[in-house]
Amino acid sequence: MPADRPKLFIPGPTHVDDKILEAMGEYPIGHRTAAFSDLYDTVVSGVQKVLFTSNRIFLCTCSATGLWEAAVRNTVLKRCANFVAGAFSKRWHEVTVSCGIKADPFEVELGQPITAEFIDKTLSTGEYDAVTVVHNETSTGVMSPLHQIAEVMHRYPDVAFLVDMVSSMSAVEVNIDDLRIDVALASVQKGWSIPPGFSLCSVSDLALNRSYKSKNKGYYFDFQVLEKYALRSQTPATPSIPHLYGLHQQLNRIFQEGLDNRFRRHNEMAERVRSWAKEKFSLFPDEQFSSTTLTCVEKSPDLDIKRFQTRLLEKGYLISRGYGTLKERTFRVSHMGDLQMSDIEELLSVMDETVEDFRL
Amino acid sequence: MPADRPKLFIPGPTHVDDKILEAMGEYPIGHRTAAFSDLYDTVVSGVQKVLFTSNRIFLCTCSATGLWEAAVRNTVLKRCANFVAGAFSKRWHEVTVSCGIKADPFEVELGQPITAEFIDKTLSTGEYDAVTVVHNETSTGVMSPLHQIAEVMHRYPDVAFLVDMVSSMSAVEVNIDDLRIDVALASVQKGWSIPPGFSLCSVSDLALNRSYKSKNKGYYFDFQVLEKYALRSQTPATPSIPHLYGLHQQLNRIFQEGLDNRFRRHNEMAERVRSWAKEKFSLFPDEQFSSTTLTCVEKSPDLDIKRFQTRLLEKGYLISRGYGTLKERTFRVSHMGDLQMSDIEELLSVMDETVEDFRL
Repeated sequence: MPADRPKLFIPGPTHVDDKILEAMGEYPIGHRTAAFSDLYDTVVSGVQKVLFTSNRIFLCTCSATGLWEAAVRNTVLKRCANFVAGAFSKRWHEVTVSCGIKADPFEVELGQPITAEFIDKTLSTGEYDAVTVVHNETSTGVMSPLHQIAEVMHRYPDVAFLVDMVSSMSAVEVNIDDLRIDVALASVQKGWSIPPGFSLCSVSDLALNRSYKSKNKGYYFDFQVLEKYALRSQTPATPSIPHLYGLHQQLNRIFQEGLDNRFRRHNEMAERVRSWAKEKFSLFPDEQFSSTTLTCVEKSPDLDIKRFQTRLLEKGYLISRGYGTLKERTFRVSHMGDLQMSDIEELLSVMDETVEDFRL
Repeated sequence: MPADRPKLFIPGPTHVDDKILEAMGEYPIGHRTAAFSDLYDTVVSGVQKVLFTSNRIFLCTCSATGLWEAAVRNTVLKRCANFVAGAFSKRWHEVTVSCGIKADPFEVELGQPITAEFIDKTLSTGEYDAVTVVHNETSTGVMSPLHQIAEVMHRYPDVAFLVDMVSSMSAVEVNIDDLRIDVALASVQKGWSIPPGFSLCSVSDLALNRSYKSKNKGYYFDFQVLEKYALRSQTPATPSIPHLYGLHQQLNRIFQEGLDNRFRRHNEMAERVRSWAKEKFSLFPDEQFSSTTLTCVEKSPDLDIKRFQTRLLEKGYLISRGYGTLKERTFRVSHMGDLQMSDIEELLSVMDETVEDFRL
């Protein structure tokens, strides 16, 4: 790793293994060849296994922001309820409105999760045919209780359940079919630990059927168009072949480690960082909703976070400061994807030897 | 190159040099860092030089199909005239309509270019505030006369001039500012010779100003949002860092070769393939409009193109069959980007030793 490329402990892009980087640099193949369709099928069935779903998977050359747009453009026919627990879920609301879709934001206090009760109360009005939830809000380090939310959603089978799993997918066990998630979307530079530039989503029959009735949704993110090509193991436009190579390689590595081991590793890394955070400072979110993939640390007022971050960078490690209104109050450490416990111990030990120098 | 990765002589993805592949496999940097903004600025100013423009450049994580949508969503307030000379320009019309934009297709016969007269006649009705033109139609091998078209466009300064340069950008000299092109868009897997998965466009003040008035255009392709972040040398969402590395490396290589040499090399390769095509078969398009980056060969009825293509593939070379309705009549050889005259000679010589075996 060159000196100007610090090891990444930010929410994304996350640390990338050499094997993935090698795959990214392979010579491309044509996207209308049999070799491509083989690659496509292998990747799709691998992703289905990781998500425990038989829903179709769309592989999309865009950032997850593009799939936010896809999810609402294809499925909202009436009105969308956007649940907001931080900067990213708030932006999903803004994106929804920017598409000319009727939508209302339902906010909780920063550091709090979206609760099943809140969703139930909102949907009981009968005004909404879709809800958006960000599973893991990286701006606050809060992971909302998806299982409880899903139980409520089972009572509203006609409401499209759209879930941003950007920073939880493949790192946390989520059974898409049991939870009846209509669209689960993510980019690849978080839990998947692939360099940024690609996204994917699972799409249920309900979501696809809605798409037939949705107007003016464009072409690039149209689920019908994506489905038409998916049925022949292709993408509508030329996709990012390097990212497909990376995803293919990563799926091999995931199955080699084993999904259970992978999920356990993420739990252990999260516990380790949380216990460090509580010892030195405190957790920003309620501990029971503290994220499995990223810890948002509420720093003490005497820590000069800017200089602390800069010193870590000089030592070759990049962590994140707080996001938006939390910029001065918090800092964030990511522990997902290809980071191992040894990487976490390495970072914590460097933070330990540095942090006292930056207490004012 | 592994045995299952034939050398690419298809319209895209095109052949990629090892130096670019190396760059694609580098460790990522965070997209909100100073290092990223340096990379961003270097790439943007390099692209501006290649396009001879002072217009802003937007770097977009999507296929060019996404930028088709961006171009029309942001600039058409009244009605769009889509000029159609083949399968790809026809799809741009379909994409325009799919966005709920009023649009009419204006078609020429396959093998013919879009002419300045045709555009003049259409715009003189006063019904349109935007035109779309595909500079180089890879389905027919026709390059439309952009300079003549631009002269007409100078007489319609209020009509947005939207040009798909997907398979001509960086391979053919096009002075965006002299030609007053409002949006010039391309993906990177054609003339730029970078693996697919990324696109870019130049955007004029007229196009940006239109964007302020355009409704329901979404967020991901909103020129206003892209501009806001471009002003701080960033992208709105996490972009494909590998493609930015690739583009950065490619710009270095382009300036090392020199733009004039690069354009001359493309002319020479095109002449060489055209003369081969005329000797063995014939050109599908009018020769004066035959593309500088791809030759569409009208094969003789006695050539079994399917078996010919398969044999070439066994020998490690991938060429393209005809596209759509031209599938049985033509085949296509690309000569752009990082292909050198020696690669062309290599392919032609293999085709020479093979072609007679597949005459029926």
